[in-house]
Formats: sequence, structure tokens, C-alpha cells
Amino acid sequence: MDTSTRDLQAEVNKLQHELQALKVQHHSDDGEQITISEYLLTRLEQLGVTSVFGVPGDFNMRECPLPRVDYIEDHPRIDWIGNCNELNAAYAADGYARVKEHSIGVVVTTFGVGELSAMNGIAGAFSEMVPVLHIVGVPSTVQLKNKPMLHHTLGDGRFDAYTKAAEQITVSQATLMNKTHAAAEIDRILTDCITRARPVYLTIPTDMVAEKIPAKRLQVPLSRTPPPNDPDVEKYVLDRIAELVEEASKDIVILVDACAIRHDVRQEINDLLTKTRFPVYSAPMGKTAVSEAHDRYGGIYIGSISDPSIKDKVENANLILSIGALKSDFNTGMFTYSVPTSRTIELHSTHTQIRHALFPGIGMKQLLPKLTSHLRQFHEGASQLPVPHYKLDVPKEQDDKISHAFFWPRVGQFFQKKDVVVAETGTSSFGILDVPLPEQSVFLAQILYGSIGWSIGITLGAALAARDKQLGRTILFVGDGSFQLTVQELSTMIHSKVTPIIFVLNNKGYNIERHLHGMDRKYNDIVNWKWTSLLTTLGDTDGTLSNSYTVRDKAGLDKLLNDAEFAKADKIQLVEVILDKYDTPRGLQVAADIGEKLAKQALGQV
Amino acid sequence: MDTSTRDLQAEVNKLQHELQALKVQHHSDDGEQITISEYLLTRLEQLGVTSVFGVPGDFNMRECPLPRVDYIEDHPRIDWIGNCNELNAAYAADGYARVKEHSIGVVVTTFGVGELSAMNGIAGAFSEMVPVLHIVGVPSTVQLKNKPMLHHTLGDGRFDAYTKAAEQITVSQATLMNKTHAAAEIDRILTDCITRARPVYLTIPTDMVAEKIPAKRLQVPLSRTPPPNDPDVEKYVLDRIAELVEEASKDIVILVDACAIRHDVRQEINDLLTKTRFPVYSAPMGKTAVSEAHDRYGGIYIGSISDPSIKDKVENANLILSIGALKSDFNTGMFTYSVPTSRTIELHSTHTQIRHALFPGIGMKQLLPKLTSHLRQFHEGASQLPVPHYKLDVPKEQDDKISHAFFWPRVGQFFQKKDVVVAETGTSSFGILDVPLPEQSVFLAQILYGSIGWSIGITLGAALAARDKQLGRTILFVGDGSFQLTVQELSTMIHSKVTPIIFVLNNKGYNIERHLHGMDRKYNDIVNWKWTSLLTTLGDTDGTLSNSYTVRDKAGLDKLLNDAEFAKADKIQLVEVILDKYDTPRGLQVAADIGEKLAKQALGQV
Repeated sequence: MDTSTRDLQAEVNKLQHELQALKVQHHSDDGEQITISEYLLTRLEQLGVTSVFGVPGDFNMRECPLPRVDYIEDHPRIDWIGNCNELNAAYAADGYARVKEHSIGVVVTTFGVGELSAMNGIAGAFSEMVPVLHIVGVPSTVQLKNKPMLHHTLGDGRFDAYTKAAEQITVSQATLMNKTHAAAEIDRILTDCITRARPVYLTIPTDMVAEKIPAKRLQVPLSRTPPPNDPDVEKYVLDRIAELVEEASKDIVILVDACAIRHDVRQEINDLLTKTRFPVYSAPMGKTAVSEAHDRYGGIYIGSISDPSIKDKVENANLILSIGALKSDFNTGMFTYSVPTSRTIELHSTHTQIRHALFPGIGMKQLLPKLTSHLRQFHEGASQLPVPHYKLDVPKEQDDKISHAFFWPRVGQFFQKKDVVVAETGTSSFGILDVPLPEQSVFLAQILYGSIGWSIGITLGAALAARDKQLGRTILFVGDGSFQLTVQELSTMIHSKVTPIIFVLNNKGYNIERHLHGMDRKYNDIVNWKWTSLLTTLGDTDGTLSNSYTVRDKAGLDKLLNDAEFAKADKIQLVEVILDKYDTPRGLQVAADIGEKLAKQALGQV
Repeated sequence: MDTSTRDLQAEVNKLQHELQALKVQHHSDDGEQITISEYLLTRLEQLGVTSVFGVPGDFNMRECPLPRVDYIEDHPRIDWIGNCNELNAAYAADGYARVKEHSIGVVVTTFGVGELSAMNGIAGAFSEMVPVLHIVGVPSTVQLKNKPMLHHTLGDGRFDAYTKAAEQITVSQATLMNKTHAAAEIDRILTDCITRARPVYLTIPTDMVAEKIPAKRLQVPLSRTPPPNDPDVEKYVLDRIAELVEEASKDIVILVDACAIRHDVRQEINDLLTKTRFPVYSAPMGKTAVSEAHDRYGGIYIGSISDPSIKDKVENANLILSIGALKSDFNTGMFTYSVPTSRTIELHSTHTQIRHALFPGIGMKQLLPKLTSHLRQFHEGASQLPVPHYKLDVPKEQDDKISHAFFWPRVGQFFQKKDVVVAETGTSSFGILDVPLPEQSVFLAQILYGSIGWSIGITLGAALAARDKQLGRTILFVGDGSFQLTVQELSTMIHSKVTPIIFVLNNKGYNIERHLHGMDRKYNDIVNWKWTSLLTTLGDTDGTLSNSYTVRDKAGLDKLLNDAEFAKADKIQLVEVILDKYDTPRGLQVAADIGEKLAKQALGQV
């Protein structure tokens, strides 16, 4: 991605917004006055935020007359979700933002101790391009200047240390040091958050929370529209693409990836498919960007890890139209893409690349609709290209044990339209790749950043967003090792009355790490927990709000998945699935083999 | 503290060490070769490290032929303690270092996802001056140079972003980019860690772990000796102090604080007390620096929060000899010290201050023994000064409910010689201040940094260190709110076979935050857990390794504390103590009142 272009875009947006805002204010500086907190919350409401995550701490509460978390608790349309810890809160905000497109995730923590605990969650949102606002309650403006030895400080007067750390993992930062600039600063970082789809960092000193500022500015909405593409360049690009499509005769495939979701071109891609009928495949991080039930959808392409028939179709196409590619190691089958640049067109949010030629500033959001009109002439030819139906049969196996080869296709049959499916990094995110998900379902995994434990917090946020959007069930797949990192958030799920189904894959340790290295190492073993007691221990004390199950064999799994009461998911449910310690999904095994080969090569080179 | 002097000291140490090391190597570059991992582990062993904490991840394991965590697991005298998550691992390393004086805590994490999760724990160790080594397994040197889009990265090629964040919270950093400098780099950061008593950060690329380097350098031990004080200045300082002591006639008190523990002058202070018989008091962070059973010990001084008789004795003394002061808000009763500089002598690790005159470079480690000889003449006079015996009676209360006023003195009677007592930030750390601890006991609390959830990880590390040092029981006091942040580490305690006694103060929420702000706010409520099921759910699946209890009234608490089987602590034990939602320890109530007053003043000023 072209960072400088993106920065310029953001700058243009900000200036336009500021100009409008100043015009409004100019005419009515003496209008209604509201507190800075109210201003911020109204902006969040305008962005569709209904849940704010976090942990209370004194710097985000204690200020008089009304503290910040109080404001949230008192807000009629925004709920305060109190998490068990800050990392989990950051994950929840990430999950919320992923499901609730066009909105953002918000996490509130306190100075130092709170915000640093959230860092890994925020960094993950940065890496995977998820818009999250991190609000930190900090000491008063006077204290920030005088630097007394307050609790939560490093004890050496460096009050800016935490902000410096945050600069590494957020695209924009602001500290509200005076009320004159507060509204403009809030608008600036929120605009960065929504246009760049990455986390931003806002610190609010305790004495700023209740300061009054003019409300009028709120009438100017925040803008997420990217600046227009240069018409001449755009026309050239469109013609050039049409030529190449023509040359490729009918053998063209579309490959969708993460940025198609993050930069909001799913509808545009759907229109392109309807009009052109080109076959479409998806990278792992683009899973569900195009409906996996679409008749022109052929499955997941992940380099050498792909199903051989998919690999063949994609790599041998005359032309690949790649949309929103994000070529990370795990997303490309450990860099095993075999798609030459000379046969590729790449569309990105801020630039276009046709074979080796780069066109900066030509973004896909505006290009795609025009491309669709331009290419509709190929509809008939492309329609004739067969796309093998993407499905996964449940294998017939001799024994009763639940193998990965059995498990993933079997749960595939359980999924319904509009389900939100969350897969933990590692075994689960590899296992589910081959499973086609139903129409309008949403798939969440953290394939680039890959922080274990992520999926528990994510499930909380995703389930709350799914409730807002009237989606279906939220279903999580997580291994026993990963679950242990962030388990306490089950408590917040119970408290928030969301009812996900949680499959805990119990294989007695860090399965992915075992396969990457150390098959029988003690450090890959974990302590076995009584998984089915977790929900009643961590909040459902009288056992009325949840159900827990252990399934040990194929028949047990079948019976549960066929149970209509279970499938209704009107309580939170946890299913412990007993798996063999050494068994692993196909994709993970292939990835581990490639990884080992690469590691050996690397050592040979040194 | 004088940072520049300290930096110079560290520099001198390093150069001296480097010089010695070069001399050794010069004579035998062709001697025994060992891997960089072995070199590092041998250095750790020399520093007395027996447990290393962490979470495995692929960048700290996968390298061939033998990965780093493998090295630790295979080491005969260093145990690998696999934690549930990285924050908890960092806390455990902090707790280990605090109890195991003259050693360090070590935590191992993986690139990005692991290290960032540990940040808050490392920052706490920085703030409170605890020597912790953070080892991070990172991509290979080739990858660090070429910057492919690997998992665990931010996706934008900034491979140095995590190190930049770490620079904010560690005193020294090193990345082992080649084998030539590896040993010197390891020695440099370890020397910084032990001499500056603060965290350091070491990243090891996967391809460096098994590189061979000469072993010979290990013969030169790491030095922690501070450089000598300037003899002329030191003599002047000693004479001046003696004069002031003379002028003060007999009315002199010693006040010990955090840095007396962190900079290792407990023995020197004990000698001073034996020879001079001056009365001695302690700040909260200095609790147990001097035995609380000492006949010249008068209790805890914490400004306006102090017991009035202690406040009177300290603030009206003619001269206060302050040793290792750390004047943070909570450690000074919200900055309510009433001890004028004109009656104070302050001894620090790198400087001395006599009234208003500063003497840089005159450190207490070497000054104290000389001061002791110098001042022994005052023995007789000082002995006549009465020091009220520091004790806390259990009050007679009418009702059965366990109040804080009852609870803390009652558990005080339960403590034994050599117990390690851990108090969570907030209610517990305030509650325990008035309780005298027995001889040779160790007290741990995080009063400056104040990160909730800290004490759970700390208890694991402290209990392992206590086992090494043949100390007594490890006893934790933690509130239900704080416990929820880091609860999973109970699992590691069970696995590591340590047997702490854990008192969970169940008051249905964030008690300290309630008192600081928002008495009936929902955000200060937490979900009630089945506390007595935690240990059997999180690892003691057959219930043979642990016991859990709920005590609801005074009689129940008495009965349990009088039970010899319970007191033996040969299993891990959890005691849920039911307390009133609004009750609070005396000290916390006073602190909250002062805090509120200050906040109102601050707003008045703005």
C-alpha cells in the first residue's frame, strides 16, 4: 500500500472537514454548550457505536463533577461493557469493529497500567487494519505539566512514555490539553480511524472531561469518502485492464483478500461478479468477502497449501484480478503464491498495479464500479468457464475418534445463514479454511498478526455487534492452549447476555506449536482444566444461563449438532471436543512442513 | 535520584568488565565453544536464577537444531515455568526478583504478540525498580534485514516498532545481530539490570540461538559493585551528619523506604540500628526493610494517613535520617509528608542530601557502614528515647460480620516468621499497612505503579523464589475485582507445585475505585464468581492438590486460622472472605478523603 498517498488523502479529508466545521462555528459560537465527554460520545453515536469496552481506573473515573465512565454508563444509546482486563477489552473492541462495518471499536483504559495491558490488542488491530479508538484517562493537565510522582507513572517524571509507545501501534494520537482544540482533535483522530481503518489513541486529562465546548460542530458529519481518482489516469487504467481481459480470452479469475473487507468494497465486488461472471477465489483473510455460497465462487487459494484443484485453477489462469491483497506468510501459504506479476492486476485502496506498472492514487473504491461497467461485455464468455462447486464432504472413517478430517466438515453442516464464525489463530484458523460458510455469514480470524488468546475477547465484541446487526449465532473455535490466555472474558459474555457457542478443541497443549516445533516437549503441554465447569465458575453460578458439554466421539458430536435446542443458541454454550494430541488439520500440516523446509534453508544460508 | 551519576556508574562497571573479559579472551580465543543460548543460561545461573517464566511461541522455539525454550527445558538447574499468558509471566518474574534478592527475574516471550502483552508487567518492574530480563525470540537476522510480511508483524515492514516501545520501559536493550558481539551485549544488559535494578530487553533472532561462541568469557563474573564514593566529600558528609545529630540532641528518627530494599542496604541499616539505637519507622514501600519485630521499630509513616502517634513522633523529631525515600503519592499519604527539608538528611543509592545541600555521587551502600561507626557514640542517648511497641490489637466488635477493622489484625496473628506476604494494590495494600509482620518476613506490594491483577502473577514468582530461599509460606491478599484480571495463573501455581494461601476479599466489586469514585456505580460491580471452584476448575481436576474455603463471619475466620492443618500450607489453598460491599480499611478511607479534597482543589485552580 502507498503510505504517502494514504497520508495525503487523510490530510485532505481533515482539511475539508475542518473548513466545514469552522463555517458552522463561525455563525454560532454562542449556541448550545456541551461537555467534551458528551461531544465525544455523540461523535461515537454518529459512527454507530453502541458498546464501549474497558476497565475502570481512577484516572478515567475520579474527576468531578462527572467522570468519563459515568458519562458512558449514563448514555442512553451506548452501553458500558466492563471487561475483566484491558487486553480482553481491546480484543473485544477489535471484534466489534470487524463485525459492525462502518462503525469502530472503542476501548477505554486508564493511564499506564491499563493502556499498556491493552497494547497487544491494539497492535493486532493495527496489523490487521481494524478501526479502533483507544481512549485513555490520564492525570490532569496541571499534573501532566508538573509531573509529580503519581501512581501509575514510571516514577521518573516521563509522563509521555506511554504515548511514545502508543505511537508505534496507532496511526494518530491526540491529548486534549485545552478545550479550544478539543473538538477538532477528536474529529481529526476519528477521521484518521475511519479513513485509514486503523487504531487511534486519545488521552483525556481528568480536568478536561467536563469542560464545556460548543455543540454546533457536531452538525458537520465526519467524512470517510476517499478523494476522487484522477480521471485521466483512471480512464487509462480502465482501458488497459479491459485490453488485458480481452487478451486473456475467457481465462480470468478474481482473487479477493483482506483489504476488500477492510476497505469496504464487498458490494462493489458483488456487482462486478454479477455483471462479469468471472470465477472468484479468496485468500484466507478474504474468506466471506464474497459469499462462499456464490455459484461463481471456487474456494480458498493459499499457495501450495491450497486444495490442488484450486491451486491449478488460480495459478494457471491467463489473468488474475487481485482485489485487496495482503501477502503475509500464513495468508499466502508461507509465501508460496505461484502467480506471476506479468499475469496479475492488483487493485488496492490507494493504488492500482497492472502487471509491473504502478498507478498511485487510483483507489479501488471508485475504480471498481467503473470497471464493472467496462467489463460487463465479458459476461457471456466468462459464464462458460466452469467453477467446481466449493464443498467439503464429511469423510467416512473407520474409528469413533473425532479427527480434524471429520470435525471441520461436520461442523460445516451445522452452520447457518448469517452465523458469525470466529476461529482462533493456529489450529482452528487452519482447520476452518476448507469449510465453506453459508450465505451472509461472517468469518473472523487474525491470520496476519496471530496473537493467541485473541478469539475469546473477539467473540464478546463480535456477539454484541451481531446482536446490533441482527446477524445469527456467534460460534467460536479455540484450542485449549489459547483459551487459557484470556479465559476470564467468559464472565463478561455471561454478564452481557450474549450467547455464543464455544467449541474448545482439547488436544492437551499448543497444537500448532507442537507441529511447528517440539512434538513432545513439555513446554507445549498445558494444564488440563475442567472445561465444562468454566461457565458455572465464572459467572453462571446457579447454572441457569449456560450449558456445557463434552463430546468424545463422532456419535456424540453428531448428536449434539443435531439437537435443535443446542442449535438455537439461546444460552451461552461451551463444547469441549476431545481430539487426539497429535492430530492436526490438513492445512496446518502442510504449512508446518513448508515452514520447516524454509527454516532449514535459512540456516543453510547463514 | 541522580540519573546521570547512575548512568556514569553503570558505564564504569561495563568498561571494567569488558576490560577483564578481553584480557581473558585474549589468552584463549581457541578454548571451549558454546552456543549463545548456553552462554546466556550460564550467566543467568551465575546470577542465581533457577526459574524462567514465559509462554512459548514460534519465534522463541522453532529454530533448528535446538531452540531456545528447549535449552531452558533441558537445563539441569534452571526450570522452565510455562505461564498462561505473558502479562502474568512478567508479573511472576517481578515477584521472583523481589523475593530472591541479588538475583533477577527472567521472562521469555515471542515477537510482537508476546512481548507487547508483557509490557505492563515490565513497566511495573521499571517503575518499582525490580531487575527483570525480558528475552524476546524474534525473526532471523536475514528476516530482520529483508522485512518480509511475517505473522506477528504490523504488516508495514516496521520490524523495530516493538523495540521502540520497549525502550520506554527498560533501561537497556540489545539485539544479537551477530555472534561476535553477542557475549559482550549479553553482559552489558545484564550488568545494567543488576546495577540499575531495572528491566532490560534482549531480542534473540532465531538463527543466533545456536551459534557458537567462546565460553572463556564466562570466567569473568558480572559486577554489581558501585564505584567508590569520593573520600574527601564522603568525610565531609559524615562529619556534617554527625554535627546535625549532635545538635538534634537525642531526638532523631530513621525513616526507611523502598530504595533501601531495592539497592540492597538492609544489612547496613540493621547494623546502624544495632549500634545507634535510633528509633526507626518505615514508609509503606519500605515495609519489612527493617524487621517489624525490632524493638526500636515504631511502625509505618505515611503522612496524614499515619496512625496519629506515629505521625507525631516522625514529624516532630529534631532530625529525620531518611534512607532510600521514594516519595510517590500513595507512599506519602497523597503527598502529605510534613517533614521539613531543614530537619532532614536523605541517603540515596547515588547521592546524599543534607538539608538543602546535595552531594552527588555519595551513595548509601558505602556511606552507611562508615556512618554507623561515626554515630555509635550516640548509642546511649538514643536508647533512652521510647519507641511505642508497634502492634495492632484485634478490636472487640458487637456483630459477627468480618469487618476490615477486624480482619487485618486477626490475620496479623496468623503470620509466622519468614512468611512472604503479598498484598494486591488497593484495598489489600492499604489494609495490611497497620499490621506488624513477623521477623524475617517479606512484604510485597506495588504501591507506586499500582497495576491491579499484579499480585496473582507475583505470588507464583514469589512462591518459587521463597522455595529456593527456604522461606516460609506465601500468603496473598487480593480483592475479587483484581483477581479477575489474571486468575488463570492459579493453573501455573498448581502445575509448579507451589502452595500459597490466597485470601480473596469478596466485596462484590472494585472497592478502592468505589471509594475513590462512584460508590454505587454499575461499573464498579463485577460478576460474582464461584471462587471456591476456581482451583478444581483450573487444574486440580481431582481435588487432591488444593483446598478452598468460604468464611462468612468472625467465628468462621477464627476457626480456619486456628486450624493447624490449614496453617501448614502444604496444599494450595483459597479462602473466600465475605466482606461488606461498602466497608474499607482505615488507611484507604483517609486516602480517598484526601484524594477527593485534592481533586476539588485542582478543579478550583483550573
